[in-house]
Amino acid sequence: MSVEEFRSAAHELVDWMADFLSTIEERPVRAQVEPGEVIARLPDAPPVEGEAFAAIMEDFREILVPGITHWQHPSFFAYFPANSSYPSILAEMLMATLGVQGMSWQTSPSATELEQQVMRWLRDMIGLPASFEGVIQDTASTGTLVALITARERATGYRINEEGFARAGRLTVYASSQTHSSIEKGVKIAGYGRENLRLVDVDGNYAMRPEALRAAILADREAGCVPTCVVVTIGTTGSTAVDPLKEIVEIAREFGLWVHVDAALAGTAMVLPEMRRLQEGIEGIDSYVFNPHKWMFTNFDCTAYFVRDRDALLRAFEIHPEYLRTKEGDRVNNYRDWGIQLGRRFRSLKLWFVIRSYGVAGLQRVIREHLALAQWLREQVEAAPDFELLAPVPLNTLCLRYRPAGGTAPGSGEEELNALNAEIMERANATGRAYFTHTKLDGRYVIRFVIGQTYTERRHVEAGWKLLVETARGTARGT
Amino acid sequence: MSVEEFRSAAHELVDWMADFLSTIEERPVRAQVEPGEVIARLPDAPPVEGEAFAAIMEDFREILVPGITHWQHPSFFAYFPANSSYPSILAEMLMATLGVQGMSWQTSPSATELEQQVMRWLRDMIGLPASFEGVIQDTASTGTLVALITARERATGYRINEEGFARAGRLTVYASSQTHSSIEKGVKIAGYGRENLRLVDVDGNYAMRPEALRAAILADREAGCVPTCVVVTIGTTGSTAVDPLKEIVEIAREFGLWVHVDAALAGTAMVLPEMRRLQEGIEGIDSYVFNPHKWMFTNFDCTAYFVRDRDALLRAFEIHPEYLRTKEGDRVNNYRDWGIQLGRRFRSLKLWFVIRSYGVAGLQRVIREHLALAQWLREQVEAAPDFELLAPVPLNTLCLRYRPAGGTAPGSGEEELNALNAEIMERANATGRAYFTHTKLDGRYVIRFVIGQTYTERRHVEAGWKLLVETARGTARGT
Repeated sequence: MSVEEFRSAAHELVDWMADFLSTIEERPVRAQVEPGEVIARLPDAPPVEGEAFAAIMEDFREILVPGITHWQHPSFFAYFPANSSYPSILAEMLMATLGVQGMSWQTSPSATELEQQVMRWLRDMIGLPASFEGVIQDTASTGTLVALITARERATGYRINEEGFARAGRLTVYASSQTHSSIEKGVKIAGYGRENLRLVDVDGNYAMRPEALRAAILADREAGCVPTCVVVTIGTTGSTAVDPLKEIVEIAREFGLWVHVDAALAGTAMVLPEMRRLQEGIEGIDSYVFNPHKWMFTNFDCTAYFVRDRDALLRAFEIHPEYLRTKEGDRVNNYRDWGIQLGRRFRSLKLWFVIRSYGVAGLQRVIREHLALAQWLREQVEAAPDFELLAPVPLNTLCLRYRPAGGTAPGSGEEELNALNAEIMERANATGRAYFTHTKLDGRYVIRFVIGQTYTERRHVEAGWKLLVETARGTARGT
Repeated sequence: MSVEEFRSAAHELVDWMADFLSTIEERPVRAQVEPGEVIARLPDAPPVEGEAFAAIMEDFREILVPGITHWQHPSFFAYFPANSSYPSILAEMLMATLGVQGMSWQTSPSATELEQQVMRWLRDMIGLPASFEGVIQDTASTGTLVALITARERATGYRINEEGFARAGRLTVYASSQTHSSIEKGVKIAGYGRENLRLVDVDGNYAMRPEALRAAILADREAGCVPTCVVVTIGTTGSTAVDPLKEIVEIAREFGLWVHVDAALAGTAMVLPEMRRLQEGIEGIDSYVFNPHKWMFTNFDCTAYFVRDRDALLRAFEIHPEYLRTKEGDRVNNYRDWGIQLGRRFRSLKLWFVIRSYGVAGLQRVIREHLALAQWLREQVEAAPDFELLAPVPLNTLCLRYRPAGGTAPGSGEEELNALNAEIMERANATGRAYFTHTKLDGRYVIRFVIGQTYTERRHVEAGWKLLVETARGTARGT
């Protein structure tokens, strides 16, 4: 392919992209294919000779697109979003073209210095103290793993990096029983061991009970363990519950624990000053992770990781092989030393495009609208006689289920209700008109309705709710 | 920004991209800016109101582009390459537009099934046995960390994930003294501890000495350690040395070690049947990592990780929170359980575009040309009276230095030679006409000349060599 063939193919692609995005609502949100359907149409061996771009694009459209679940559909109400936006896509085009690998300052000064500055912007935008420094990670899983490792090293005088765990004793980690699975995964990877993760009890709102945290720490100290890190979740994945940060910070300070805040979704909401009450006590934490790739309209992957003691982070991760030394040395940030991977994409570029294109006020408007839509939907659910909410709605996520009135209705027992709601959700998703996912809260099957896709409007939320109501009542009637 | 504004901006970008790529040779390879120069031109606070695309693009061109080190310049001879190519950029445009997050099969069946198939293609293309299964990771650092953790778990009956290291004893890891820094980093992250990494002696070609490996394993067993994993490098970062895989595999089998192959660069060369002699013994390994984002013209990040015992990998990494369960369950691959991160980009798409667009024969032609250019350059260096090679050239990388003849010449001592060559390299890089980086081999400063950028031709290699020669002789003359 010559550069002029590239130019012509790229122009053609741009029209496909714009057409696709402007007609995405005509497509099913969740892919309507069965396992194996796509792979059956892909040849077992690669072609020997190169193929024309037109042939590749035809297969892309015919074979792959029907098997895509459309995360960018405004009726995507599943999981937490992984959003793009028009300025973010434009930035990704430039990132791919420049092909920068920003492991060190010298390997692209602009990538490093833009990251420095944009992370300061983000820090200030979400109300973190100026003592924090930021770095972009790929995912919150990685960000949390970085925190767990830094905590491990600080707690042991940086000895596990050197000696391994052999002489380290048992280090314990604390998080609520509603915490994200990445904490358990990180605890395993970092060598703490799952047995040493304490899943602390929650209250009726699914938020960590500080007195239970204190009791767990005391019991562990009594047993000779070394309480090392507490992960505080602001906006749990199940129900967006908010752990009481201020009380937890006080306990952590008393016992010398590293405080890591997982605000993967909710961090974006902190661009609204009125939401920062959810992170009261923030000045006492050690690290903070949130995902602009979730709710800040920046393509996956783009996770913001902030740390108060930058030296602790660097001490845990830095490496200095000869072939990576540059003449600038320590006068510059070499972000390879701020996390796990050596190589790094130029991800600050898309954040910069998004923040400048929206402006802070523009971001605030969209987030406020999503939050208002969630409250509007809450009112609808509360007003519906046969639906109920199973958790508060502090952010953009509703946990609801269908529960027909009267003991004689089908599904009046909990087991039956769970099966009924699972069936309702599957039927709704099978229409392709919206996409929901579930969780369980206290053993009860809950349909999650998350309002956060970049281009979601009131009409999409209304239609999604109508779909659920009609599907539920139809299912209950056996139709 | 509306979708039609996006369309128009994207068309404008495509022309910028094609113009940029067709004139990239006019730009300095290494950015010619000083630390702080870029950030000084970036405002301290984000804009309150959104800005026009034209304003953002103007700053991009004026402020950022001069601070870019051009990895896609055909005279980029530094590090190992991180290549793009025209079809790869096109695929990245689609990836950004679809915005798929492929953590589970259901979250985009096409992303999962294309990855399955393309990784089979890749496996066959590089001569790995059909018993291996593949998954895309972000970087080789992550791939190696995944191997180290899987090895750790297999060696302890999956007990460290559960209990931590407290009762595990000392697990030891082996790699040559020339191994990549990511092995040390992984050993630290995974909790082995750097003390338990044995850097095994190398021979005169910088390849691991099998008898030294055996001695180290025996000494560790004697001392009560648990030899757990050996990392074999095919193509070290310093000098592309090739560890003797077959002998190492035999030793590893005898003592039950996990064998991980780091072929980050060299894996791509295995598309040439005549190069597979470098990985003789491959059927006895446990895991293999290589980077299509290095030498296979696929945008960073895209690392191929292959494992023989898929169940060991899954057992080490899988998690099953309720909110991630899908009705397809285990009937499908859920790649979130094949590595560290939960979220995943649709990276198989760019591999598919690249492999189909080049064809296997097309990839082979480019790699063969790079290898031939490296041999051509080796002859030039050998013929030059005042240059010498400090390592063999089994792949695409030359390790050379300037050494003027005669004891009276400046820089005849090793220290002086090191300083002289560092100065030569810095002067050459400062011209912007090519970009080299260095390493040290046996304490000697070596300029690395890596021939592997997608669009590098003979004329670029010739010009790069001429630049080095003239700069060296000029520096030695004090001009």
